[in-house]
Amino acid sequence: MRPVVTTWVDVPDGSPFPIENLPYGVFSTEGTSPRVGVAIGDQVLDLAALAAAGLIDDGDEGAFARPTLNAFLAGGRAAWQAARERITDLLAGTADHDAVAAALHPLATATLHLPVEIADYVDFYSSRYHAENIGRILRPDSEPLTPNWKYLPIGYHGRAGTVVVSGTPIVRPCGQRRSPGDAAPVFGPSTRLDIEAEVGFIVGVPSRLGRRVAAGDLCDHVFGAVLVNDWSARDIQAWEYVPLGPFLGKSFATSISPWVVTLDALSAARVAAPAQDPRPLPYLQDDDPWALDIALEVALNDHVVSRPPFSAMYWTPGQQLAHLTVNGASLRTGDLFASGTVSGPSPEERGSLIELAWNGASPLLLPDGSRRTFLEDGDTVSITATAPAPGDGSRIGFGSVTGTIEPASLQ
Amino acid sequence: MRPVVTTWVDVPDGSPFPIENLPYGVFSTEGTSPRVGVAIGDQVLDLAALAAAGLIDDGDEGAFARPTLNAFLAGGRAAWQAARERITDLLAGTADHDAVAAALHPLATATLHLPVEIADYVDFYSSRYHAENIGRILRPDSEPLTPNWKYLPIGYHGRAGTVVVSGTPIVRPCGQRRSPGDAAPVFGPSTRLDIEAEVGFIVGVPSRLGRRVAAGDLCDHVFGAVLVNDWSARDIQAWEYVPLGPFLGKSFATSISPWVVTLDALSAARVAAPAQDPRPLPYLQDDDPWALDIALEVALNDHVVSRPPFSAMYWTPGQQLAHLTVNGASLRTGDLFASGTVSGPSPEERGSLIELAWNGASPLLLPDGSRRTFLEDGDTVSITATAPAPGDGSRIGFGSVTGTIEPASLQ
Repeated sequence: MRPVVTTWVDVPDGSPFPIENLPYGVFSTEGTSPRVGVAIGDQVLDLAALAAAGLIDDGDEGAFARPTLNAFLAGGRAAWQAARERITDLLAGTADHDAVAAALHPLATATLHLPVEIADYVDFYSSRYHAENIGRILRPDSEPLTPNWKYLPIGYHGRAGTVVVSGTPIVRPCGQRRSPGDAAPVFGPSTRLDIEAEVGFIVGVPSRLGRRVAAGDLCDHVFGAVLVNDWSARDIQAWEYVPLGPFLGKSFATSISPWVVTLDALSAARVAAPAQDPRPLPYLQDDDPWALDIALEVALNDHVVSRPPFSAMYWTPGQQLAHLTVNGASLRTGDLFASGTVSGPSPEERGSLIELAWNGASPLLLPDGSRRTFLEDGDTVSITATAPAPGDGSRIGFGSVTGTIEPASLQ
Repeated sequence: MRPVVTTWVDVPDGSPFPIENLPYGVFSTEGTSPRVGVAIGDQVLDLAALAAAGLIDDGDEGAFARPTLNAFLAGGRAAWQAARERITDLLAGTADHDAVAAALHPLATATLHLPVEIADYVDFYSSRYHAENIGRILRPDSEPLTPNWKYLPIGYHGRAGTVVVSGTPIVRPCGQRRSPGDAAPVFGPSTRLDIEAEVGFIVGVPSRLGRRVAAGDLCDHVFGAVLVNDWSARDIQAWEYVPLGPFLGKSFATSISPWVVTLDALSAARVAAPAQDPRPLPYLQDDDPWALDIALEVALNDHVVSRPPFSAMYWTPGQQLAHLTVNGASLRTGDLFASGTVSGPSPEERGSLIELAWNGASPLLLPDGSRRTFLEDGDTVSITATAPAPGDGSRIGFGSVTGTIEPASLQ
């Protein structure tokens, strides 16, 4: 354990953003341009201002003055670690106190933007509990897992252009659906709008076309993690997805949390990867495999409905990265790969409403007396998460990814 | 018909790039930076040089000096049409002849780059003949078309980061495959490497999240078309694709032609859209539906193996765009949506080897006496295409999209 670091910044008890965290985002205040900041307590530290004052290095290109993290992400692990150390020093030491304090803005006055220009977005399907639940619900007469499930981390490409930052309103999508027994599909607003609580990983360092990345090299490429809500219209998806997979049922919006928690901040969250049987093919093996103990919490209209444990995922982020690139596919700065719905073994650990309400058979009862099978207009979903902090027994947080459902647009 | 325009540039007979075409690309010559050019005959017209000389307007941002077309594409239809008119005048008239002539470079000395920074890449599946052939080959005991096929243009997202320009070597991908009857998958180079001959459409003008685009508004958003070879590892794809669709079987590389042929240049290629039964839902209808008469040609090692007719596609580009956005998904400048494999009703019109060689049952015989079921290392595939030229009975061309298979990489 490294020594506990303390900061002169006032960090409220239970804040997701103690000095051990230092997640990166893009913020603006009234009348100013979006730029890179780091969250500390209930404030945001303006890294562009620190760079302009000569207090932190942001390279020849001025990475911290940009409206996305991409330029900083492309700098690689050494630059990420140097920045983390420097920011820790500035917030823990007394040198340059006044200049650093002047670069702090209350989070309440900041607008948070999509932190990363997303290059490609891949969504995996790596929770065995989720895959089994979905299999039991949708294909009750078959084996819950498809034959390939335990041999590879199943994934597909989603729409990068509709990845939005937390807080962006989610307009209920329209589309085709066909109910069982109907001869033809009908068109209209989705009636089975759902969430998927996930953890997503942001690629910083690209890889060359034709060259695979080993599972153990994750930290050389991946900068950090965000929370993901992969909004899903189950009715649209069910009608469209054979044979080429989800398309419009997913592509209307995917929300991510505004703060990217670095892998360095998650160093104490590493836990043993779950046992895998059958043993994966060599390219999916890792000498030192690890999973992450991230505890998610899903709230619907401020009422906690689920606590999915990320540590229960079957496939690790390293394996996902190795699989994604084993065919020679290259990585780009800004690539996002998400875990797939995080569901644990217990009913109260499920990361989607289709599982929580078992496809409508067991509606959720909310404190206001209403019931939910899928989302209604006006519903707000917030996903938060915490993980063990480096250095002591406390926890760091991801903040939240939040979205409110707006009625379908008629035009 | 508009009057025939003639140019003082020497255009060889049968050139794909007469003055009626004027496709856009990104080129460089030795020691110079990539910039925007237009192909004319066997030369490329340097639009950045013309803009620097004050002979053409490229906006405050200098769109023609950029290494991608994206800034020009974002300018919209009025800017596209103004540029086309101006370039036509410069190449047809005598004013500024010397300055324009000085901006011409032989194509043989130019390096052609990926013309567009691809935002999202969507691949459709819109040839009925292709879908039926694949259904008969892979699911011989079922109806060849899935129940949704005639109700919506099936599509999925591909990997934008591995869209490469024609000429980029294609390294045979490795991956998991499981043969029928095998208990477990094996890992290795794909043994069923295939092509898919397609036409792709490049989006210039973005759309707002939550707002759909009508089929009839295609020309307000789409700048032009390219040829696409969606390389496919059939064995990897077959094992991975249930339930979330193609992933590594497609994501290792997708090649596009270097020249973007504008919709204005394709104005004379418009033909009636094929009849559709059942009648599509209202959002897929268009008061003035049209398809495009683009004649593709697929050559394997310089031997023509197929002539797929794009006019035979079931779903039109307008319908693909309307479907893609009906759920509120936004468009970005640089989005690419491809048609899916173009196959016509005749055996010699099929756009993939799995169809042409009927899953290995009818190998192709090449002039050197060798046979092909799928691609071998060293094979070169070239897809070319022509379409009726505006103004007279001649034809314009797309140039080609070409790729040569390199052996699988062992690392």
